[in-house]
Amino acid sequence: MPVRALWYRPGTLFLIDQRELPGRTVVRRLTRIGEVADAIRTLTVRGAPAIGVAAAYGMALAARTRGETPDRAASVLRATRPTAHDLFVGIETVRRAWVDGAEVDAAADAYKERVVDECHAIGRAGAPLFRGEKSVLTHCNAGALATVEWGTALAPLRVARQRGARLFVWVDETRPLLQGARLTAWELARERIPHAVIADNAAGHYLARGDVDAVIVGADRIARNGDFANKIGTYEKAVVAKENGVPFYVAAPWSTFDPRRPTGRSIPVEERGDDEVLELAGRRIAPRRSKARNPAFDVTPARFVTAYVTPGGIVRPTGVAEAVARRPVPDDPR
Amino acid sequence: MPVRALWYRPGTLFLIDQRELPGRTVVRRLTRIGEVADAIRTLTVRGAPAIGVAAAYGMALAARTRGETPDRAASVLRATRPTAHDLFVGIETVRRAWVDGAEVDAAADAYKERVVDECHAIGRAGAPLFRGEKSVLTHCNAGALATVEWGTALAPLRVARQRGARLFVWVDETRPLLQGARLTAWELARERIPHAVIADNAAGHYLARGDVDAVIVGADRIARNGDFANKIGTYEKAVVAKENGVPFYVAAPWSTFDPRRPTGRSIPVEERGDDEVLELAGRRIAPRRSKARNPAFDVTPARFVTAYVTPGGIVRPTGVAEAVARRPVPDDPR
Repeated sequence: MPVRALWYRPGTLFLIDQRELPGRTVVRRLTRIGEVADAIRTLTVRGAPAIGVAAAYGMALAARTRGETPDRAASVLRATRPTAHDLFVGIETVRRAWVDGAEVDAAADAYKERVVDECHAIGRAGAPLFRGEKSVLTHCNAGALATVEWGTALAPLRVARQRGARLFVWVDETRPLLQGARLTAWELARERIPHAVIADNAAGHYLARGDVDAVIVGADRIARNGDFANKIGTYEKAVVAKENGVPFYVAAPWSTFDPRRPTGRSIPVEERGDDEVLELAGRRIAPRRSKARNPAFDVTPARFVTAYVTPGGIVRPTGVAEAVARRPVPDDPR
Repeated sequence: MPVRALWYRPGTLFLIDQRELPGRTVVRRLTRIGEVADAIRTLTVRGAPAIGVAAAYGMALAARTRGETPDRAASVLRATRPTAHDLFVGIETVRRAWVDGAEVDAAADAYKERVVDECHAIGRAGAPLFRGEKSVLTHCNAGALATVEWGTALAPLRVARQRGARLFVWVDETRPLLQGARLTAWELARERIPHAVIADNAAGHYLARGDVDAVIVGADRIARNGDFANKIGTYEKAVVAKENGVPFYVAAPWSTFDPRRPTGRSIPVEERGDDEVLELAGRRIAPRRSKARNPAFDVTPARFVTAYVTPGGIVRPTGVAEAVARRPVPDDPR
């Protein structure tokens, strides 16, 4: 059975609590917008496309609450996390339906369906990159958990497997929150896709030895020139992949592309609490007197990207601006 | 009071148990060679120069045991870990004294004193690289704990501070075993040197933003052409430093240079157990069905190194072979 990160029945949003994986599969039931905002802020749900969908349903829950307004609801959800562009697209899509007097649940459902369809299209577009026997490195989790279904980075691998490719996946553990070791490994183990978890530090070692045929990652926001924000550490992998002549792919639905950012320089990077670095499983790992810095994302310049895998097909870095302008979905909603 | 990783009184080697830091300072007393071999294998003592000294004292303890022979003792210690060259130099230095009928304790003490003196000399040679106000990134622990006293990478920072430099140190946490977050942070916190622990993934982010003036690391083995092995992740930092025009320094005593390896390709890289990656503080972090790979070191080509900080001064990559040939210590003992 395929993984679904979240699902909705009128008045209730169900989420797999991603903080509990892989140890336990716990489903949270949310009925109020404040609970959805908390779930996004605490990474109960994470991954740019998935938090966009969760926020769309957060708007739908708000619309059921007497006295709630579209703008107030949007501002509550917009304040949760700053980097993923999809969050703002999800919120705005449903806000407009609500303002226009359309059926709000239906608008949120349609947004979710579009994200799922786009991820499946990413899978079909990217699968030919992974024919035959391939070793692929991925960073963080850009799978079904991050996107509702299919994934972004993992979608082409899933479709390639259906088409007979024999894949091995190097899974960066992805400190500080271990989305690779916990979530990507969980998705791959469930589908019995051969893989090995590695410390983030080991990716370069395997890239330099020729043990990696390609790198594929998701994105949190892609600027018009192709610069993109993604989980901290992505930039290092991209630089080292290029140094070793290994292709580096970025997979994302249209909601991740931000036509209002000319380059990556203006993408806001969230800095999270230093306890995520200084503690592990509730235990302090560094001295009491030490502090930490904890940027959740970094920005990788487009020159390190071989190609973007989009729902509309493979796009080269020089083609991003045009592809975004022609994308078959509403422009940036703000 | 300066940190000392280990000390010796005739018949007993005292070690700080580095697995317990920073939570507790536990001193182990070892009286037999087998205990020293175990301490090296389990990383109770780690860091190339420090395990060389521990092994030298392991030989001294063996020489006090009836029926023990120099060659058997050497082979026990040589089998503990494969990558650090200093280990073999420490063993061989004392083995020869033993075979020659010299005072074995004195030979081990002299070896330790030489390492400490060389680390201090590294500090004086490297300090001018860190004048004024500087932000410096380091990976793993190449401090006093790794070398008995002073450190290799940390020695120039300590001497620069004595000379009035205002330093800020970015400390890579260094997964999987967190020698940065646990040990380097502990040394810096003790001396109140301003620092921040970061996930290894975040180093590239700060390098790209211009927040790092220089990178300095230790080494486990340096080939004749300047290629060097060091803690896994060092290669990535070197590649990203070069991409951003940030100087990258390698600090090491003469025992780390291996004149018998023409390049880094033939340096043996230890692969350790996958539980170091799959578990944290005894708790499983990845799914039961997932496996891991765990190379403890990687090899960085000399072209990424700005300079080597040696006891004899600053050496450029093209000068390594000559510097090693002229080094004022015995040639590779094997």
